[in-house]
Amino acid sequence: NVKGDRLWESLMEMAKIGATKKGGCCRLALTDLDKEGRDLFSSWCNDAGCTIKVDKMGNIFARRAGTRDDLPPVMTGSHLDTQPTGGKYDGVFGVLAGLEVLRTLNDFDVKTEHPVEVAVWTNEEGSRFAPAMVASGVFAGVFDLEYGLSRADLDGKTMGEELKRIGYAGTEEVGGREIKAFFEAHIEQGPILEHEEKTIGVVMGAQGQRWYEITITGQEAHAGPTPMARRKDALVAASKIITEVNRIGMDNQPFACATVGLIQSSPNSRNTIPGEVFFTVDFRHPKDEILSKMDAELRAFAEKTAKDGGYEMKFEEIWYSPPVEFDTDCVNAVRKGSEIAGYSHMDIISGAGHDACYISRVAPTGMIFVPCENGISHNEEEEATPEDLAAGCNVLLHAIVERANI
Amino acid sequence: NVKGDRLWESLMEMAKIGATKKGGCCRLALTDLDKEGRDLFSSWCNDAGCTIKVDKMGNIFARRAGTRDDLPPVMTGSHLDTQPTGGKYDGVFGVLAGLEVLRTLNDFDVKTEHPVEVAVWTNEEGSRFAPAMVASGVFAGVFDLEYGLSRADLDGKTMGEELKRIGYAGTEEVGGREIKAFFEAHIEQGPILEHEEKTIGVVMGAQGQRWYEITITGQEAHAGPTPMARRKDALVAASKIITEVNRIGMDNQPFACATVGLIQSSPNSRNTIPGEVFFTVDFRHPKDEILSKMDAELRAFAEKTAKDGGYEMKFEEIWYSPPVEFDTDCVNAVRKGSEIAGYSHMDIISGAGHDACYISRVAPTGMIFVPCENGISHNEEEEATPEDLAAGCNVLLHAIVERANI
Ligand SMILES: NC(=O)NCCC(=O)O
Ligand SMILES: NC(=O)NCCC(=O)O
Repeated sequence: NVKGDRLWESLMEMAKIGATKKGGCCRLALTDLDKEGRDLFSSWCNDAGCTIKVDKMGNIFARRAGTRDDLPPVMTGSHLDTQPTGGKYDGVFGVLAGLEVLRTLNDFDVKTEHPVEVAVWTNEEGSRFAPAMVASGVFAGVFDLEYGLSRADLDGKTMGEELKRIGYAGTEEVGGREIKAFFEAHIEQGPILEHEEKTIGVVMGAQGQRWYEITITGQEAHAGPTPMARRKDALVAASKIITEVNRIGMDNQPFACATVGLIQSSPNSRNTIPGEVFFTVDFRHPKDEILSKMDAELRAFAEKTAKDGGYEMKFEEIWYSPPVEFDTDCVNAVRKGSEIAGYSHMDIISGAGHDACYISRVAPTGMIFVPCENGISHNEEEEATPEDLAAGCNVLLHAIVERANI
Repeated sequence: NVKGDRLWESLMEMAKIGATKKGGCCRLALTDLDKEGRDLFSSWCNDAGCTIKVDKMGNIFARRAGTRDDLPPVMTGSHLDTQPTGGKYDGVFGVLAGLEVLRTLNDFDVKTEHPVEVAVWTNEEGSRFAPAMVASGVFAGVFDLEYGLSRADLDGKTMGEELKRIGYAGTEEVGGREIKAFFEAHIEQGPILEHEEKTIGVVMGAQGQRWYEITITGQEAHAGPTPMARRKDALVAASKIITEVNRIGMDNQPFACATVGLIQSSPNSRNTIPGEVFFTVDFRHPKDEILSKMDAELRAFAEKTAKDGGYEMKFEEIWYSPPVEFDTDCVNAVRKGSEIAGYSHMDIISGAGHDACYISRVAPTGMIFVPCENGISHNEEEEATPEDLAAGCNVLLHAIVERANI
């Protein structure tokens, strides 16, 4: 079994980098803090005797040799970047659980036929740079390298520039190699396991996502002498669309999620009618048909709102990530691991996107969920228990060892 | 008569300071650019033989002596600060029209019994520091000095600090002295004069205003795995209130205006449900009863929205500026000036607040409006014709000379 204490200590050590006052973490992708986190991980992997490689998207691979080192690796991992008001576990758990598996194999001097690699995927969150999972997406051939490196943050800085700046623009080609199996351990980030009182979620797949960027242009004018009837208030139009996004989420239950997470209004002055508003939409559903229906509803409403109010509108779908089904063998390995270790478990669909979603296109893939307190994630108060995290890590160990010796 | 060309040239010279690509001006209160504008104005006043004093709120007074210099001054003026996407005339016209009056009196060597002063009021716009007209408000005893100096921008910098930094924290006491009469020339900032084809607006008074700051606190959570029914999305609540603000404006016609000009959402990340949204509300109406009714409607809706959705809400009315009626003698002087000079004119109520609104509490006050193109202000495309501006300046000259010799 893994050492739960060691895993916990590593998590708490990593959480110091970008620690927030409210007990969370702000370690945005490709910032100085992200570099610090990557450096710490790399030094731990060095200590564990791994060889480390970095690819052109900044993905890090720490490798423990197999007895037949020419065989394709069994891979695990997740991400070290966080949301602006992120927690200590989202992503980090999957990376450090992978490290803990390597440390445990070392402890017991276990040899595996296949090499085992722990991956850190760049910019999984999609918060500083959209879309999410962009570097695992390049690895899986969903995006090309140029697209990945040219993703820009709101200040116009690109991933390529920022990778160079922090010294993680590696030389390895991105992807294009065989992987025996990929497993990602993660906190659930939702309320189901806690509610069902299960320790392990055997992840069957993930729901689909559509991300949009919408810019409404009206006309700036004085908030005092401009009669209501003459106005083109971009924020009023945006507010109607935001309310509709919420309606679409509500009316496509069960399962639909609909969120406007980001909004920027210009010139953002109390007594000037907003002339331009930029905002994003995040739609999710496990069924592709419903996701398409939500898409159609949003387009129709946004177009009508723009037309009726005489606004200009730029409406762009910037990301579509279809629903994912994981590999049966990998899913079974996770379920079997839970049973051998004696943990309560249930099948579950992931509400979040994960690097595993993209890797599943190029390798047999599975995921392991553990509960998080009140189902809260993307929040500084995100919590998980050392016991549940150790349990998830043990299931990961079982799954990896099984796959690495076939 | 005044020299319209000279007035226009000075306006264009001042407009270079903070000039924007779209032909407007961004010269926010107490920035380096505001200092530059103030310096330019002061040098022009020096050249015109004025003595210059600056008070503790940074208000500038350029004085042309009277033949009986112990008599209280006739004063005119406005402001040099602009909106983030402001125009070349809002405020600046009133200041430079005052200067043009002094230059004209010099040209013809006209002596006035009362001294004449041109004032530049600090932070009239209320954009960088809320509320608007804060320094003329301190001058009029509506706010105390400490309140004025402690107004802070969104970065927490106070007016007191910024006045010191740009060297305009003067030593004169703020207000407390007699003023014979105050006149302010300004572009209308609305569509009425243009629509009625009149050159001069004889301003009878100004509508009332109520400004609010509202903070809605919900709960940050992941946009993917968090079921709609469990969410407390602060931006959804804010959007409902913004839509209602617009409804209140629409349903209290004629005359009501209602605007949300400023919004900040946190953490502002595409795939995190917004945890906290801060926004402002600007309500206006010429009738106090209707303004109170609008206030009651907003409070009721906001409270219900917060309660029903389980949000925390901070709801603060940060400014109340009641409807203003200007002094009959001053209004008549403006009307008479228009008639003598032969300009078409009409009575009008100001939709915007102006420094004159506060000065009217401590001195007989009147205002002169000239048309602006398409009624557009607080917009980089704000335009006014040299002819109309010269006309307004001539009316100002008449009104000042009349009042300065009684
Ligand atoms: N796990 C996670 O938070 N992923 C971010 C991408 C998403 O929003 O689903
Ligand atoms: N004149 C002007 O733009 N004043 C700003 C204060 C207001 O919003 O009324």
